[in-house]
Amino acid sequence: MSTFEETVGGIVNELLADHESEKVGENIKIFNHPDKEIIIDIIFSLRKIIFPGYFRNRDIKVYTMKSNLSMLLEDVIFKLTKQITIVLDNDDEDNSDILDRARQISLEFVKRLRTIREYILTDVHAAFDGDPAAYSEDEIIYSYPGLFAILVNRIAHELFLLNVPIIPRMMTEYAHSVTGIDIHPGATIGKYFFIDHGTGIVIGETTVIGNNVKMYQGVTLGALSTRGGQALRSKKRHPTIEDNVTIYSGASILGGDTIIGKDAVIGGNAFITRSVKEGAKVSVKNQELRYNYDAAHPVERMDIEDDDTAWFYMI
Amino acid sequence: MSTFEETVGGIVNELLADHESEKVGENIKIFNHPDKEIIIDIIFSLRKIIFPGYFRNRDIKVYTMKSNLSMLLEDVIFKLTKQITIVLDNDDEDNSDILDRARQISLEFVKRLRTIREYILTDVHAAFDGDPAAYSEDEIIYSYPGLFAILVNRIAHELFLLNVPIIPRMMTEYAHSVTGIDIHPGATIGKYFFIDHGTGIVIGETTVIGNNVKMYQGVTLGALSTRGGQALRSKKRHPTIEDNVTIYSGASILGGDTIIGKDAVIGGNAFITRSVKEGAKVSVKNQELRYNYDAAHPVERMDIEDDDTAWFYMI
Amino acid sequence: MSTFEETVGGIVNELLADHESEKVGENIKIFNHPDKEIIIDIIFSLRKIIFPGYFRNRDIKVYTMKSNLSMLLEDVIFKLTKQITIVLDNDDEDNSDILDRARQISLEFVKRLRTIREYILTDVHAAFDGDPAAYSEDEIIYSYPGLFAILVNRIAHELFLLNVPIIPRMMTEYAHSVTGIDIHPGATIGKYFFIDHGTGIVIGETTVIGNNVKMYQGVTLGALSTRGGQALRSKKRHPTIEDNVTIYSGASILGGDTIIGKDAVIGGNAFITRSVKEGAKVSVKNQELRYNYDAAHPVERMDIEDDDTAWFYMI
Repeated sequence: MSTFEETVGGIVNELLADHESEKVGENIKIFNHPDKEIIIDIIFSLRKIIFPGYFRNRDIKVYTMKSNLSMLLEDVIFKLTKQITIVLDNDDEDNSDILDRARQISLEFVKRLRTIREYILTDVHAAFDGDPAAYSEDEIIYSYPGLFAILVNRIAHELFLLNVPIIPRMMTEYAHSVTGIDIHPGATIGKYFFIDHGTGIVIGETTVIGNNVKMYQGVTLGALSTRGGQALRSKKRHPTIEDNVTIYSGASILGGDTIIGKDAVIGGNAFITRSVKEGAKVSVKNQELRYNYDAAHPVERMDIEDDDTAWFYMI
Repeated sequence: MSTFEETVGGIVNELLADHESEKVGENIKIFNHPDKEIIIDIIFSLRKIIFPGYFRNRDIKVYTMKSNLSMLLEDVIFKLTKQITIVLDNDDEDNSDILDRARQISLEFVKRLRTIREYILTDVHAAFDGDPAAYSEDEIIYSYPGLFAILVNRIAHELFLLNVPIIPRMMTEYAHSVTGIDIHPGATIGKYFFIDHGTGIVIGETTVIGNNVKMYQGVTLGALSTRGGQALRSKKRHPTIEDNVTIYSGASILGGDTIIGKDAVIGGNAFITRSVKEGAKVSVKNQELRYNYDAAHPVERMDIEDDDTAWFYMI
Repeated sequence: MSTFEETVGGIVNELLADHESEKVGENIKIFNHPDKEIIIDIIFSLRKIIFPGYFRNRDIKVYTMKSNLSMLLEDVIFKLTKQITIVLDNDDEDNSDILDRARQISLEFVKRLRTIREYILTDVHAAFDGDPAAYSEDEIIYSYPGLFAILVNRIAHELFLLNVPIIPRMMTEYAHSVTGIDIHPGATIGKYFFIDHGTGIVIGETTVIGNNVKMYQGVTLGALSTRGGQALRSKKRHPTIEDNVTIYSGASILGGDTIIGKDAVIGGNAFITRSVKEGAKVSVKNQELRYNYDAAHPVERMDIEDDDTAWFYMI
């Protein structure tokens, strides 16, 4: 029987041989890849810049808000430039001017922070106005997962528009892991967006969402089919949602040509694969339910008739 | 072209100007807000108090269980009092006696720990009895997300009843982020509550749940409409679930007047907006399914008839 | 009125008395239980072994890949052996040879790493081929929650097969908390498995999945009923999915005798409790939808007829 050292050595040699003979990761530079911890750190620094006072740095107590903002902003630019340099370097292009390009992208990104902030403040208002369980705007900023997912999307979307690879998706997947809300960084979202509860929401890459849209848990804004796989990459595959639309929980809206007209209301669990006109209230007809009673509960059958109020529901 | 310093300085000035001109957060005291890390820390200390031996403090090895409990309890009281002081201070009321009120609330809360513990132990038993995939009660305590979500709700609910703002919701949103189970701290839950899998569950603020209730992933206990927004705040908007009810995955039960009678079983994906009588087994009639086959699979159509066993399902 | 010390002392005494009088946790050795932090640490070390170069140890920069692999592997064996010793010790059996058994299990487990790695690399390829939103395999390895959940299942499943208690479930519940994807360690999964989005997926203990299976968010592979509770423990309760099957979002497939034949496609939200033949495309017939318009939007009713393309959908 082999010794412990021999066994471990044998396994290591096998793994090394496998690693050398395969394709995955062959272009990866061992000490040169994006760092998830730093990318998460950038998200939280940006949140402090956007909501100064709410998420203070516990280590720093004496600076003015202006010094604090400057410091946070320079730190973000420094870290973001480094991470962008790394991911640009993984591309096949000429790499001679990477650092310059990364710096320009970072600066261009922080110039857009003012607009990101303007949008996210409208989301806070929309959440407070739309949720009777909200006791204050503070509660929303501190604890609503929907707001966090939207915040991260608004940040990641700008980096996506600046053609930064990998990092935007790492950011939104971090928000996904924390909130259960999966918004692709490619999705375009208007002002006053409100997500309530949110777990299970999926919003695809080419989705376009207008202003004042409200959405509940389990909603999918998806594609009609991906049998085309990578061949479909740049096509519009996901729906367009116009202004003032409400989408109740569990509804699926699918397809790149599907447009939900403004002021429409989509009922819970509706499965929509075609456009819906402006102002329509769309609901699933009442399910046919079956009622059984056992010997212990010999009450009569209770029927539920179809009625016109069913669309008027949900959380 | 401007220097880096000028660019950063310009962005900082714009953000400052925006910040000063708006309403969100204007009452926030910069160095005075609830601390998410400490609130999470309180949750885990309470879990150690409730399950001594399961979640030991790795730094402390020599104390007796009694010393350990005393220490944990004093630590919780200290931290909780501090956090409650902060959130009470954000209210508009007279603040002169805040510290006293925060101390009284914390003490009143820890007096209720014995009852919280009594309830959560019934939940452990219910999970073991209800889940054939459970190999031991230890496995449930160490790894079941449903148990963690219920534990946090039972803690947060007592603070909610004691009128503590923001903190209860921060606690349940932490559990939501870890488990995908979103239980509002206002929800009232009886003994022997069992949640299996749990991702996507939403239980609204004014829900009332009896004893021995069992619930699967994706269940919503929600409101019929929130078009009233903030105006609906104090109304009962969510259903009442009586004793011994089972609710299978994906079911939605909506409305403040909706009562699910004791011993009822609600089938998977059922959409319920009216009361269900005691002992009823409610299920969705079999979906009409369509079967297509392509040239490579020329088998004949396979129909599924409607039958009476459909309610008898699910995980 | 009692002093603070008296009040805290009283509560401690009550909690101690309760603790001594009850059954839960009576066999737990206070300083001897599995450590969640270490088990998570083992997962991440194994991920570094499987994807060398992608998830480097930031503290270590000078070693060759071979030294690095050896070090990681020895560290995993050491930690895993310790944790297995602890959980085996919680059983009722003769404990004299625990350390030996734990060592043998750990060694047997790491011998299987090469196969685990072979499988997980096929999953990376499947994700890239199947998702038009994927820009590179790197993006998948760094950020796709589905890949992480599958990785953890492949690790936990081998420990489950080696009859290690508690630890496999702690591992998969960690993945569940991070991804919203709940795969029991008992589930058997073939090569080229692709989960897209994934939040809300539940895959039960006795599920068997073939090669090239693709699955979207909210899918349940569950049991038909667990009224039997613990009595059902060792029975096959969950379905079998054959090669090349695609299951769209929100579908439920239930029952231990249910077999989905190879090349089948299961449409979104389908509720399947019986076997489906090879090559079938199964879809829910179009829902009957109701359209209402208010006075502000007096457009006419828009009907949607049933058509044959409905199965062809989803993300």
